Amino acid sequence: MQDVSSLVDQAREGRPRAVARLISLVEGASPQLREVMRTLAPLTGNAYVVGLTGSPGVGKSTSTSALVTAYRKQGKRVGVLAVDPSSPFSGGALLGDRVRMSEHASDPGVYIRSMATRGHLGGLAWAAPQAIRVLDAAGCDVILVETVGVGQSEVEIASQADTSVVLLAPGMGDGIQAAKAGILEIGDVYVVNKADRDGADATARELNHMLSLGESRGPGDWRPPIVKTVAARAEGVDEVVEALEKHRAWMEERGVLTERRRARAAREVETIAVTALRERIGDLHGDRRLSALAERIVAGELDPYRAADELVAGLTQG
Amino acid sequence: MQDVSSLVDQAREGRPRAVARLISLVEGASPQLREVMRTLAPLTGNAYVVGLTGSPGVGKSTSTSALVTAYRKQGKRVGVLAVDPSSPFSGGALLGDRVRMSEHASDPGVYIRSMATRGHLGGLAWAAPQAIRVLDAAGCDVILVETVGVGQSEVEIASQADTSVVLLAPGMGDGIQAAKAGILEIGDVYVVNKADRDGADATARELNHMLSLGESRGPGDWRPPIVKTVAARAEGVDEVVEALEKHRAWMEERGVLTERRRARAAREVETIAVTALRERIGDLHGDRRLSALAERIVAGELDPYRAADELVAGLTQG
Repeated sequence: MQDVSSLVDQAREGRPRAVARLISLVEGASPQLREVMRTLAPLTGNAYVVGLTGSPGVGKSTSTSALVTAYRKQGKRVGVLAVDPSSPFSGGALLGDRVRMSEHASDPGVYIRSMATRGHLGGLAWAAPQAIRVLDAAGCDVILVETVGVGQSEVEIASQADTSVVLLAPGMGDGIQAAKAGILEIGDVYVVNKADRDGADATARELNHMLSLGESRGPGDWRPPIVKTVAARAEGVDEVVEALEKHRAWMEERGVLTERRRARAAREVETIAVTALRERIGDLHGDRRLSALAERIVAGELDPYRAADELVAGLTQG
Repeated sequence: MQDVSSLVDQAREGRPRAVARLISLVEGASPQLREVMRTLAPLTGNAYVVGLTGSPGVGKSTSTSALVTAYRKQGKRVGVLAVDPSSPFSGGALLGDRVRMSEHASDPGVYIRSMATRGHLGGLAWAAPQAIRVLDAAGCDVILVETVGVGQSEVEIASQADTSVVLLAPGMGDGIQAAKAGILEIGDVYVVNKADRDGADATARELNHMLSLGESRGPGDWRPPIVKTVAARAEGVDEVVEALEKHRAWMEERGVLTERRRARAAREVETIAVTALRERIGDLHGDRRLSALAERIVAGELDPYRAADELVAGLTQG
């Protein structure tokens, strides 16, 4: 057993191994999970969580890396969570195939973690918030959560971020089509990357048109900006950071930030509660309590509803 | 509000309207559901529950009707529950298209009820056991639960019966193929109906062969018999009743009947408990308790696990 509070202290000093260890403890159902979460609680709530999503090929890793560089210039500590809903592999190792990301590998102000969610109990909704809590408590000022846009999971990720960035690229054909499916509802900031390519202006125009179609905004509501970037050359990245800061300021002004975080926390609690109850009910197969209740029902001493009441009451006593 | 105990009294006197009313009360989530179940509890446990399943066309209704006639000759009160997992219609009315069944319509010793489970909260697992309890408490000696064999639901029905009868017919091609899929594991008694048709002997032989393939029975274990019938002419039906009585005697001798009933009661309790918990969690969206917990998490005063504990504890207090 490791001393959780000394691990947390080390994580806050910026030691990547301590951060990695803590994430591993909260990712699995380790016996120390609850102790870690309890220790982290008072240390959280400082990080600004930005979700980045988009189809493969839009340049998500490159954009994430460019954002890391931009935030590092401001002296901020940055955490990156690269979520791959289709990969069964998880771990604290650097993503070998992400060359752009590896330039930050030796920077003690940056912590990068890839996270797989396939086969994960409760999926993304379960795994990501816990890792975000660790990075938050470890002192990250900004946490970038990057995920491959695959339907449901991008919406889930968006629901876990303070601000959601949706990335597009010109000439991807189905880019905007995919956008129609749901991306238009989740973006707080839109980025058209690879803006040096043909069709970038057309993509931005089309996106702008679609955003105004869906509009029912009142004065003072947030109007998602569209920023054009060439992330590989860091062009337009400062404008993205600026758009993010504007969104953050807008949210703080109107209490939206707290509102979003409360909704996120509520979903987190719900997920944990549902998972816990399911596990407990699963454990009851062959359990003495359930057998005893069934015996009394067969004997006519008890009806199934009162038995269920007793069972439910028993569940909460663990 | 109706007086539940007088309804139960009337049901036990054999009044079909009282039985119908009680089933309606337990089918839906009526406010009196719990009172009804509590009143019924000490009156149950006497009925012998026989499940009948098989693909469409094997003659299930005809066989059920013939069994009703056979049991009525013995002076027994019979309940019939015709479960249609695909129909959205439910009710106490006679099945108009089941001519064979309607011959029992005027017999006060027979109660027939059709039951739809599509769209039913908790499906078959929820609805059927409650109706079985009513028929049991109403004084039925035998309850025949007839269901269309459609995958999962036939296995569910089998799990709710004391004895499961699987019906087959010759020349149905996929009859035995379907049998391979799972029917071989649930039958306590097999009936090859329409035995006057070509291929009846071949079907029985093939079935016999398949049953011996899957065999790992010890001495004294139950070997499912295969009975050939022509239900439309009541041929072989007495042999089916005989096989049922033998199975029942075998179960009673070895304590299997009590064991099965306890397992059934345990599943029933579990289904009710899970449904109740899900409903309560569903109700919590926008609930003050959950919002209050989320607020404390965002303030860093509480971690999501302890919040989930509190939420779960709150659920049991209704």
